[in-house]
Amino acid sequence: MLISLSNAASFLKEKDNFTIITHAHPDGDTLGSGIGLCLALRALGKKANVINDEEIPPKFRYLEIEPQEFEEETVVAVDIADVTLMGKGIRAKYESGVDLSIDHHGSNKLFAKMNYIDASAAAAAQIVYELIGLLGVEITPQIADRLYTGISTDTGCFRYANVTPDTHRVAAKLMECGADAAKINVRMFETKTRTYAALERLALDSMQFFYDGKCALITITRDMFAQSGSDENECDGIAAISRQIEGVLVGVTMRERRDGTYKASVRSHDPVNASAICAKLGGGGHPNAAGCQLPGTREEATKLLIDTIGEFI
Amino acid sequence: MLISLSNAASFLKEKDNFTIITHAHPDGDTLGSGIGLCLALRALGKKANVINDEEIPPKFRYLEIEPQEFEEETVVAVDIADVTLMGKGIRAKYESGVDLSIDHHGSNKLFAKMNYIDASAAAAAQIVYELIGLLGVEITPQIADRLYTGISTDTGCFRYANVTPDTHRVAAKLMECGADAAKINVRMFETKTRTYAALERLALDSMQFFYDGKCALITITRDMFAQSGSDENECDGIAAISRQIEGVLVGVTMRERRDGTYKASVRSHDPVNASAICAKLGGGGHPNAAGCQLPGTREEATKLLIDTIGEFI
Repeated sequence: MLISLSNAASFLKEKDNFTIITHAHPDGDTLGSGIGLCLALRALGKKANVINDEEIPPKFRYLEIEPQEFEEETVVAVDIADVTLMGKGIRAKYESGVDLSIDHHGSNKLFAKMNYIDASAAAAAQIVYELIGLLGVEITPQIADRLYTGISTDTGCFRYANVTPDTHRVAAKLMECGADAAKINVRMFETKTRTYAALERLALDSMQFFYDGKCALITITRDMFAQSGSDENECDGIAAISRQIEGVLVGVTMRERRDGTYKASVRSHDPVNASAICAKLGGGGHPNAAGCQLPGTREEATKLLIDTIGEFI
Repeated sequence: MLISLSNAASFLKEKDNFTIITHAHPDGDTLGSGIGLCLALRALGKKANVINDEEIPPKFRYLEIEPQEFEEETVVAVDIADVTLMGKGIRAKYESGVDLSIDHHGSNKLFAKMNYIDASAAAAAQIVYELIGLLGVEITPQIADRLYTGISTDTGCFRYANVTPDTHRVAAKLMECGADAAKINVRMFETKTRTYAALERLALDSMQFFYDGKCALITITRDMFAQSGSDENECDGIAAISRQIEGVLVGVTMRERRDGTYKASVRSHDPVNASAICAKLGGGGHPNAAGCQLPGTREEATKLLIDTIGEFI
């Protein structure tokens, strides 16, 4: 059932003993919006915890808060578009037991009993900001830091097409409530681990161009992971690099898996459709960001991928 | 003389035939605020041009507008803190002839007859937004794109400590007036020339660490410029890289000049003071971003610089 935001607020005010669940591979928005909401519920005198299925990545640990002890009665999901995006443990326990889902993905599968979905919000944290207003809770600096983190990380620091005038207005309010925006941004956007920096260097060294510079390919081998001390978890940033080169319409990152086959992340600029390229290879995704698995050796995988891209540019 | 923004608006309303001057090595803010103001003055039925001392860098050419023909009567400076920051030709002609200066640098030398300085504004374009409001001119999409460019480029896309709640509020208004924020941000922040990407790769290859990883050094030689096809104009982005590595307190980029000596850009995190380091070597700058010239060969320059940094960490 779809409900209004004020109905969601009324529901939260009536209930108590909340478990707020976040999605697998937790990011700044699921954690920021979940923990921000948790703090607001606690400010109303309620018991509330946020749970994740895996350890919180070191870069997001500043968002964490102490858990409380209580017997769970109400389950809220934040920033989870589908039960398949829950971690295994959370899915096993909560797949059909979510009371209220708060999300900003237009693709949300409405898996909860009650769902509030606003696809125009750049981040779940932008919705939670409005929701906390309806709860009548004052936004403390602690809450503001968490919601700001959600918004800034989901928008590439106000860079992406999902940013609306409201996104900026909420950011302004959160700064006034005490969000330490500059410090959060340094941590989120201006800090690289040494292992990531080493991997990035090897990735740049591997870059090849095809089709008059319209396609750029980065290849990351197991050997490069070993050499840099980095791993798959640090690959997300790399995928963005090749598309940034002037003239490149399709930027691809191929990454070797443990079994020696390759996984490709494809990023494109309009009018090239990354999702169509990956669909032809058995994968899928969004129009400008998609992925697929590739069979064969590095040489075979490269040839298949580059030939397929050639049909689209 | 310091004046209020409404006095500045009255002055602009009274006068006509404007030349708006911008600073040397023009960036998004001097161009965006200058051209935005120029369009607003033209909307009032006045004649106005923006002039630069050198060619506008390719990445900013989308800001350009057609010049008008008229005899210059009034000179306005935007985003220029001091006459030494004017290009040679502009300085020769306008050093003592600026009627009104609009700026956001606290260090502004008040070189104009009338000066409006707001050091709390993240960008000159943020001031020009308020000024255009006082002029009673509607912000067209064309003006909005230019002011948004000024604000986003001077704040690292809302990332830096100079961003205030007002900066976000102005960005929200500019988007509502038609600024194509996402497109501008791709152009400003998600696009690298191939020559820059090649230089960046060589720069990363050159990175060395000192003092338990607290200092990172990138060295760019003439040979690397030749190899990459890049040049000094593309070095700005490189200077930010070394400080981004986790654990690094001082990130340094040394760049070989035509005469074989080196110039250093020093970036620091608190509490290390980059300006104090550079002052000891005869240079200067801001607390977290400073520069200096170094005598001697690459080896001599490196030793002098690293030894000096050692005294500060």
